[in-house]
Amino acid sequence: MQFASDNWAGAHEKITENLGRHAQGFASAYGTSEIDRAVDRRFSEIFERDVAVFFVATGTAANSLAQASISVPGGVTFAHSQAHIITDEGGAPGFLSAGARFQGVDGDLGRIDRDGLRSTIDGFAPGNVHVGQPMGVSITQATEIGTLYELADIAAIAAICREKGLPLHMDGARFANALVTLNCSAADMTWRQGVDILSFGGTKNGCWCAEALVFMNPEHARQMPFIRKRAAQLFSKSRFIAAQFEAYLADGLWLELAAHANAMAAALAERLDASRDCRLAWQPQANEVFAIMPGHTAAALREKGAIFHEWSMAGAEGQILRDGEKLVRLVTSFATSPDEIDRFGDLIK
Amino acid sequence: MQFASDNWAGAHEKITENLGRHAQGFASAYGTSEIDRAVDRRFSEIFERDVAVFFVATGTAANSLAQASISVPGGVTFAHSQAHIITDEGGAPGFLSAGARFQGVDGDLGRIDRDGLRSTIDGFAPGNVHVGQPMGVSITQATEIGTLYELADIAAIAAICREKGLPLHMDGARFANALVTLNCSAADMTWRQGVDILSFGGTKNGCWCAEALVFMNPEHARQMPFIRKRAAQLFSKSRFIAAQFEAYLADGLWLELAAHANAMAAALAERLDASRDCRLAWQPQANEVFAIMPGHTAAALREKGAIFHEWSMAGAEGQILRDGEKLVRLVTSFATSPDEIDRFGDLIK
Amino acid sequence: MQFASDNWAGAHEKITENLGRHAQGFASAYGTSEIDRAVDRRFSEIFERDVAVFFVATGTAANSLAQASISVPGGVTFAHSQAHIITDEGGAPGFLSAGARFQGVDGDLGRIDRDGLRSTIDGFAPGNVHVGQPMGVSITQATEIGTLYELADIAAIAAICREKGLPLHMDGARFANALVTLNCSAADMTWRQGVDILSFGGTKNGCWCAEALVFMNPEHARQMPFIRKRAAQLFSKSRFIAAQFEAYLADGLWLELAAHANAMAAALAERLDASRDCRLAWQPQANEVFAIMPGHTAAALREKGAIFHEWSMAGAEGQILRDGEKLVRLVTSFATSPDEIDRFGDLIK
Amino acid sequence: MQFASDNWAGAHEKITENLGRHAQGFASAYGTSEIDRAVDRRFSEIFERDVAVFFVATGTAANSLAQASISVPGGVTFAHSQAHIITDEGGAPGFLSAGARFQGVDGDLGRIDRDGLRSTIDGFAPGNVHVGQPMGVSITQATEIGTLYELADIAAIAAICREKGLPLHMDGARFANALVTLNCSAADMTWRQGVDILSFGGTKNGCWCAEALVFMNPEHARQMPFIRKRAAQLFSKSRFIAAQFEAYLADGLWLELAAHANAMAAALAERLDASRDCRLAWQPQANEVFAIMPGHTAAALREKGAIFHEWSMAGAEGQILRDGEKLVRLVTSFATSPDEIDRFGDLIK
Repeated sequence: MQFASDNWAGAHEKITENLGRHAQGFASAYGTSEIDRAVDRRFSEIFERDVAVFFVATGTAANSLAQASISVPGGVTFAHSQAHIITDEGGAPGFLSAGARFQGVDGDLGRIDRDGLRSTIDGFAPGNVHVGQPMGVSITQATEIGTLYELADIAAIAAICREKGLPLHMDGARFANALVTLNCSAADMTWRQGVDILSFGGTKNGCWCAEALVFMNPEHARQMPFIRKRAAQLFSKSRFIAAQFEAYLADGLWLELAAHANAMAAALAERLDASRDCRLAWQPQANEVFAIMPGHTAAALREKGAIFHEWSMAGAEGQILRDGEKLVRLVTSFATSPDEIDRFGDLIK
Repeated sequence: MQFASDNWAGAHEKITENLGRHAQGFASAYGTSEIDRAVDRRFSEIFERDVAVFFVATGTAANSLAQASISVPGGVTFAHSQAHIITDEGGAPGFLSAGARFQGVDGDLGRIDRDGLRSTIDGFAPGNVHVGQPMGVSITQATEIGTLYELADIAAIAAICREKGLPLHMDGARFANALVTLNCSAADMTWRQGVDILSFGGTKNGCWCAEALVFMNPEHARQMPFIRKRAAQLFSKSRFIAAQFEAYLADGLWLELAAHANAMAAALAERLDASRDCRLAWQPQANEVFAIMPGHTAAALREKGAIFHEWSMAGAEGQILRDGEKLVRLVTSFATSPDEIDRFGDLIK
Repeated sequence: MQFASDNWAGAHEKITENLGRHAQGFASAYGTSEIDRAVDRRFSEIFERDVAVFFVATGTAANSLAQASISVPGGVTFAHSQAHIITDEGGAPGFLSAGARFQGVDGDLGRIDRDGLRSTIDGFAPGNVHVGQPMGVSITQATEIGTLYELADIAAIAAICREKGLPLHMDGARFANALVTLNCSAADMTWRQGVDILSFGGTKNGCWCAEALVFMNPEHARQMPFIRKRAAQLFSKSRFIAAQFEAYLADGLWLELAAHANAMAAALAERLDASRDCRLAWQPQANEVFAIMPGHTAAALREKGAIFHEWSMAGAEGQILRDGEKLVRLVTSFATSPDEIDRFGDLIK
Repeated sequence: MQFASDNWAGAHEKITENLGRHAQGFASAYGTSEIDRAVDRRFSEIFERDVAVFFVATGTAANSLAQASISVPGGVTFAHSQAHIITDEGGAPGFLSAGARFQGVDGDLGRIDRDGLRSTIDGFAPGNVHVGQPMGVSITQATEIGTLYELADIAAIAAICREKGLPLHMDGARFANALVTLNCSAADMTWRQGVDILSFGGTKNGCWCAEALVFMNPEHARQMPFIRKRAAQLFSKSRFIAAQFEAYLADGLWLELAAHANAMAAALAERLDASRDCRLAWQPQANEVFAIMPGHTAAALREKGAIFHEWSMAGAEGQILRDGEKLVRLVTSFATSPDEIDRFGDLIK
C-alpha cells in the first residue's frame, strides 16, 4: 500500500517503450532534433497557441528558472506560504534567479487569499529600495494539499497581477491531475485566465523525468536559452525528454493516467470518510488525500504495510487536530491499484 | 556518416532495457532507493575505495557543481584554455559556484603545460584580495581534442596541486574512452595519481542521461547534497539514472562501448592518414579525430552525406593550417558502424 | 523637531576634525596603514580580546557580509520577523551571501522568542535538503523597535545556537545605545554571552560612514578579506573610516553620544507619557520612541514642524491601536537638542 | 618620495572642509537630501545633459554595478586584458552582476585593439548558448598603464558597440587625469563619442571616498536603485559623498588637481628620460609613469626612500625588458610635490 508520493512510482510502460523506439539512430543534440521540434509543436497544439517550451531536469528547476526569467534586482515573488517554491526547494528558486526572495501569503486550503495577496504586494511601495520590488506571483495547481483553484480563482489572481504589472507563474507539478478534475483544456487553465508561465510536470504522472517550462508568450522567453544553459539544465540528448513527452501527450495518455490517480484518491477518500477512526482533513480534488487519525492508528497502519508520510502544517495543531491525532498525507498515482485501496480500506474500516 | 558528436547518438539497448526493468514498482525518491544504493556501491567497487557519488543532469552540471564544492570567495580555478569548463558551458561553472572564475593555462595538444600551470598559480599571491585566490585545478580526460594525459602527467599536475594546496578535478565526459586507451583501472587514472573529484560521464558513451560527480574522499562531499539541491539537480525518480548506470557498469559494458568508439576513431584516423587530400591534425587517442583538409574537400564530403563540425582553434591558422585548409572534428561513438568508416574512407581515398 | 531617523543627523565635529587631521600625508591603501592598524588594536582593547575588524560602507554591508562569512549551501539564518536583515535590506543579505535565506521568528517587543527559535530551527531536520540547512542566528541590539535584549537573553539565545551548532550574529547598528543602557562592557554584551560576529555601527551615532564587522574569533574571519573585496566593500583610502573610528572610540566619545541620544529619547518618552492624546507603545530602552496617537494629532504635529515616520507593524492594528490611531516612531540622536524635545513636549501637552 | 599609488594620498583640504560645512543639521537619508540633488544637477551640468548619478563606495563597486546594470544570462563583457575589471577586482564584477564573465582583448599600450575586439565579439555567435552572449564593452580612461584613448579611438570602439548592439562602459577611475590631457569636455570624452555608462572616480584625485556611476541615458538606470541597494552600496548619510563631490566639482578643483598630478608625472618622466640608468617604458599621458631600470637601481632608489611598485606585465620580459631590468610604476597625485620629483630626479641623474 504505497501512498508515500507519486514520485515513488516508476514510469508508465508506454513512456519507456518510446525511449526504446528513439534509442537508435542519430539526432542533433541540445534540443534541436526533429523529435524535439515535434514535441514543441505538440505543446502548442495542446495549449492552442504558439508557446515556447524548455525541457529541464526537475520540477525545482522548472520553478526556479521561471523565477529567473522574471527576475529583477531586489525582486520578490509572492506565493502561498506552503508553496513548494518557498518551503521545499532548498534555496534553488532564489539561487538560480540570482537573488529573488519569496514572500508567503496565507490562504485557506492551500489557495492564496486574494485580499491577502493584494495587501502583501502593497507592502512593497514602488521605488522603496529597502523592501525590494515585486517581481511575480506564483500559484500551485493542484495545490500542495491536493486542492484546486477554480478557473475563476485563477482569473481573479491574474487580475491582481495585471493591475500590479506582475507576471503569473503556475507550478503545475500536478497539472494533469488538476486538469482532469476541472474538466477543462490546458489553455483554459492557463493563459485564458491570465497565466504567463507554467511549470508543466510529467514526472509525477508516469514519466521518468519530464519537466517543461512553458511560456504562453514566446517573447517572454527570449533569455531562456541562456538562462537554462547557465543553470546546467540543457540536456545534450534532449530527445530522451522529448520521447517521454511524445508518448505522454499522445492519445490522451497523460489525462488517462491523471484520471486514474484521481479516481484512486477519491476511492481512498471515500474509505477514509467511512472509517470510524479516521476522517478527511479536507476534501481532495486531485491525487493527494490528507487524513486525520489517532497516532496509534497511523502506527498500526504502517505496521501493516501502508506507506505514507505524516504531514506537518503550521497551525494544524489546536485547529484541526485533537489531542493525539496526526495529519497524514496519502498520495496516489498512475501506478496505484484498486487493490491497494481496498486493502487499505479494509484496514481502516 | 555521422561524426558530428557522440551526443548525437542515442542510447545502447541494454540501457533502455534496464529502464524498462525498473519501471514497475515503487522506490523511494531522491536517491534513497535500493538501486541508487547499489549503484553507489558499484562505483566504490570500480574505484576500489569508498567514494561519494552524486547523479546530476548534465556534464555541465557535474563540472559546475564540482567547482561549487570547492568554491571560495574570489576563487579562481585553473584549466586548459580550451577546456569545456571555460569555453563551452554558458557561464554555468561560475554561476553555480556563486562567483568562481576560470583562468586558462595553455599547453600543447590540449594538455595543461605544467610550468605554465605553476607560474599562473604563482601569479595569485597568497592574501592578495585584488587578484583573488586559487581554488582548484581542472583537467579534462580525454582532452577536448581527443588526446590523453598519461598517468604520469596526471600525477605531475596533482603534485603541483598538493604543493599549492589545491584540489584536482577531472572532467571525465569521455572518461571511459581514456580508460580503455590507457588500459588502466579507474582508480589508477584518478585518486592513485591525486585526482580528488571526477565528473564521470555516461551520456556520450551510450546512456540517455547519466552523469555523476564522484568524490574520491566522501569527507569532501559533505555539502554536496545541499549544493546539488540548490542547483535543482536532485532527481525525484533518481532510479532512472541509477538504472542506466547499473546497466552501463555491468559486465564491462561501458568499457566495451568505449573500446568500440575508440577503435572506430582509430580506423578513421588510418583512413585519413592514407588520404591524399587530408591529414591528421594530431594522433587521436580516444574517440575524436581532428583532421585537416582543403575547404572544398570538406564541402564535398558534406555534400556526400558526411556530418561533422568545422573546428575553430586559437592559433590554428598560420600554425597548422595552410591556405584554404580547414580543421575538422570527427567524433565516433558506441553507435558508429564500421560501414560508416568504410564509406567515409572511400570518399577521401 | 527632527525625529525622522538617526541617519538624518550629520557627523559630530570631532569626527570631521579627525578626518582633517589625517588628510595630509601618504598612507598605504586598502586597510594596511598605521591608523588602520591602530584602530584594529583599539577594537581589541574595547572588546578585551583579539578581534578581527573589517570596515565596510554600510550597515547593510556589515550584516550581509556577516551572513556571507557563515554561508552554507541552502543555508537559512533565523532572525526576528521584524529584523532589518529580513525586511529592509533590499535582498542584499541573500545576494551577498550567494543565496542564504532568512526565516523570521516572532517574539514580543522586537526580541526573538526563545522557544519559537528552537522550534523553528527544529523544523529544519539535519540532512533534509528540501528545506535547507540552518546556518546562523541573528539578533538586533538595540532591536528595531528600541528595546533591548538583557545580557541573560543574549546568553539564552547563544545557548540555543551552541546546542544547534550555529554562529550568533548581532546587528549592532545601535550598539552603543544598547551598551549605555545596559551599562556593561562591549565584551559583556557580545562574546561573553556567546555572540560570534558583530555589525558594529558608528554611522547612526555621529560618524559619517563608519561601519565595522567584528569577529570575536579571528579564525572565523579567514575568508573575510576575499568576501569583502568580492563585494566591492574594500576602501582604498581605508584610513578615512579609520580616522572616524579613532575619534569615535577615543575618550568615550561614542558612549557619550549614545548616552545623549538615549537621554533625549527618555525625555521624549516622559513627555509622551504625560500627554493626554498620546501614549507610549512600549517603554523605550535606547534612542527610539514608539508612540500611539490619533491620526489627526500626528498630522497636526507634522504641520507644526515635527518630522517623524509613521510605523507599520504587522498585527499592530486591532492589538495595540484603537480606531483612528497611528503608531509613530521618533528617533533621537547625538544631534538632538533638549530644546527640540521641549518644543515637541509643549505641542503634545 | 611617494609614488606608490594615488590612493595613498589623503584628501584635499577643500574636500574635508566641505564635510565640516555639511556636518551640522539634519538631511534626509539615502540620497534624497538637497545637497544630493544639487550634486546630481552639477553632474548634469558637467555632462551637458540629464544624467543619472549613483554614488557608491569604491571604484570596484562602480565598475561592478555598471556590469550588473547591463547583465544578461550567460553574458560576457569585453575589456582590455589588463583592465582592472578583469585582473584586480577580486571577482566583484562577476559576483555583483550575478554571473557575468569577462573576456580579455589585447591591444598595444593598454588600449583595446579594435580588430581584436570585433573578432573576439564575433567568436560569440548569436544564439550559441554554450559560449554565452556578449553583454557589453568596457574601456579604461586613462588606461591601466597611464596612456589614453584619443576621442577618435573611443568613437571607433563605440561604433563597434553600436554595430553589435552592446553598451559601452568607461572605467574612469582617473577620468579627470585623462580629461585635462585631452583638453576636452566631459561630454566630449563620453556620450559624444558613444559612451553609455561611466565609472566616475574622485577618490584617487583628492577625495576621501567619492565614486559615482553615471548613466548618460537615465532610462538605462531604471533598475539601478535596486541594484545598488542589493549590493549594500546605498549610503544612509549619502550627503557625505555629495559634500565631497560638491567641493570637488566646484570652481574646477577636480581639473586643477588632475592637472597638477599630470604635470608632476610629466616632470618625473622628463627626469627619467634624461637618466642614464633608467628609461621610460612608454610615454605617460596622465599621472602614471612606467619606467624601466636595472634591478639594483630600483633597489637603491627604494633604500633612499623612494616608494613605488614593481609592475608585472605579461610579455614584458623578453620584449621591453633586458636582462636584469625591472618595470616599475610611479604614480603622482594632487599631493605630489615638485620637491619630491626633484629629489627623485637627483637620485637617478
